[in-house]
Amino acid sequence: MIIDIHGHFTTVPQALHDFRKSQLDGDFAPDTIVGQAASIPDEDLRSAIENGQRKLQMERGTDLTIFSPIAGAMAHHLGDATISRFWTEACNNLIHRVVRMFPRHFAGVCQLPQSPGVAPENCIAELRRCVEELGFLGCNLNPDPAGGYWTDPPMTDRWWYPLYEVLCELDVPAMIHVSSSCNPHFHHTGAHYLNGDTSVFMQCLTSDLFRDFPDLRFVIPHGGGAVPYHWGRYRGLAQDLDRPILEEHLLNNIYFDTCVYHTPGIELLTRVIPAKNVLFASEMIGAVRGIDPRTGRYYDDTRYYLDEIGLAPDERQMIFEDNARRVYPRLDSLLRSQGRGHDRRTCVATGLTRGS
Amino acid sequence: MIIDIHGHFTTVPQALHDFRKSQLDGDFAPDTIVGQAASIPDEDLRSAIENGQRKLQMERGTDLTIFSPIAGAMAHHLGDATISRFWTEACNNLIHRVVRMFPRHFAGVCQLPQSPGVAPENCIAELRRCVEELGFLGCNLNPDPAGGYWTDPPMTDRWWYPLYEVLCELDVPAMIHVSSSCNPHFHHTGAHYLNGDTSVFMQCLTSDLFRDFPDLRFVIPHGGGAVPYHWGRYRGLAQDLDRPILEEHLLNNIYFDTCVYHTPGIELLTRVIPAKNVLFASEMIGAVRGIDPRTGRYYDDTRYYLDEIGLAPDERQMIFEDNARRVYPRLDSLLRSQGRGHDRRTCVATGLTRGS
Repeated sequence: MIIDIHGHFTTVPQALHDFRKSQLDGDFAPDTIVGQAASIPDEDLRSAIENGQRKLQMERGTDLTIFSPIAGAMAHHLGDATISRFWTEACNNLIHRVVRMFPRHFAGVCQLPQSPGVAPENCIAELRRCVEELGFLGCNLNPDPAGGYWTDPPMTDRWWYPLYEVLCELDVPAMIHVSSSCNPHFHHTGAHYLNGDTSVFMQCLTSDLFRDFPDLRFVIPHGGGAVPYHWGRYRGLAQDLDRPILEEHLLNNIYFDTCVYHTPGIELLTRVIPAKNVLFASEMIGAVRGIDPRTGRYYDDTRYYLDEIGLAPDERQMIFEDNARRVYPRLDSLLRSQGRGHDRRTCVATGLTRGS
Repeated sequence: MIIDIHGHFTTVPQALHDFRKSQLDGDFAPDTIVGQAASIPDEDLRSAIENGQRKLQMERGTDLTIFSPIAGAMAHHLGDATISRFWTEACNNLIHRVVRMFPRHFAGVCQLPQSPGVAPENCIAELRRCVEELGFLGCNLNPDPAGGYWTDPPMTDRWWYPLYEVLCELDVPAMIHVSSSCNPHFHHTGAHYLNGDTSVFMQCLTSDLFRDFPDLRFVIPHGGGAVPYHWGRYRGLAQDLDRPILEEHLLNNIYFDTCVYHTPGIELLTRVIPAKNVLFASEMIGAVRGIDPRTGRYYDDTRYYLDEIGLAPDERQMIFEDNARRVYPRLDSLLRSQGRGHDRRTCVATGLTRGS
């Protein structure tokens, strides 16, 4: 089967955006938004998905999306920790409802109630609720709750350790994912996202984070930002800084997704990074929504690029399915509970059954 | 001939670093450093170059380096505008002395006396002095004088326009180059440099800067940060944002260097970006100083990667020489004045004469 590990509920009904605006404007108490979001009718959610992500899944022949709230709308820099808490709860509950409606096609990942200057411990209750009560598989973790000003400690600081302890205990990964940027230097999807990916990778390189947390897993999205393109630079920096080789130092804990929107980029990614560290993803419907006139396909139809480059069957199997089951063990359990064990390789192995 | 457009005087005698420390510590009046730097003996400069950059030029078979002060040491966020002014003057004067000693092998590019919150107009006098009096070819322009906090306006803001007017008048390009980072999120050579490159490209994409300045030229170093790897994303974002196609919108004004330290990265760069927009560079001696055990060559020996991928002769000629003469027209004039006109293609065209 084909698992897309990176999708956001970007097609959420307009009502949610209106409720958020009211929350930030102070029209209601901060917790009001939880009930407001709950009032969005099931049919509105269903049609948002059926005319959006589910439709594209079918067109592209992908089976399941690991689904989370809109990354750009997490906006942890707006309001305070209380506002962030209830906004987060409202968004995560909507993901849960989608997953219940489409249990074979979507699985949940949560946003966290981060807030600049507030200790990450503050996120643990919501993480536990989402994983233990709602059956989510992991979380999105924003390395810059300040929205482009990077004023909290780096991700390798002990500031984050209490949260990492719980991630390990629950055996769920974190996708490192910034939100929107209020710094005019950083366009959010064209700069801030990629910069966040690049910066956190380098933080990990210079630290012993994964010696302290051997089981912690970070998924670095958007193809790893600038990292695979500059893999020689990182290998050389690790060497100059007397760090272990990257395969040992980082590649038991860091994974890259395939949100790279052209064939040469996907080719580089899969050539440079071991297949065991690459997870299929599209971020559909997300940063780039158009159709590439050169290919006649959506820019974010990353399966197309992977089909184009002709991976070996065992690499395809890892990238499209096996790595996701390994990095998100709760997904594997979920799929097995649905009778979708680890033996349906046909679709992936042939690579020729688009839209099947 | 082979022109390396990106080298910094990283081997500068220790005395300069000591003088800088004294300047920042307030041991002397801020302008003292100009005389102190002038007191560094010629033989110390000569040996720093002969045992460093000139030695590697000969080993690698490159002819001339466009040479500027240490990028990481510009540190515009330290001290104030007055300190920045005299530090800059001292550093630029040292580059001028190196160029006079090795006129066939080095040509100068200046740093600018930027300072956070201070209008870029303040840099014009030093830019004019370096170009008009010292014969420099261009400048390094720091998009983030705040050293990782990005508190000044983006590069497309009219804040920068007075400086751009003079760049156009003098017909010199600016290399967009951040300095060291005091933000613990951003390792300077492993994150801040690449993030700076990526961010400014996207600023240009969303703006009409080059409609206002059709002759302005930016060189984006380090292989363009994350940009070529994500070229599909940028093409798609331009389309979604109703911008012209990138070739028309940006590629008459933006150039990328080849400071990408492995063959797959160089291959992607030269495959995705038109050869007319790629300029040979190594940043030697710079960010990565070791020898890659996989190749037995320095990571920053970028000529090796370019030789490996087998470019067409006309592309090699553009990347190694012609583009540099075009983007830095004062270099072309300088070379012609040295009798090094535009007719010596042998070395580049064969691509087989390393160390010749």
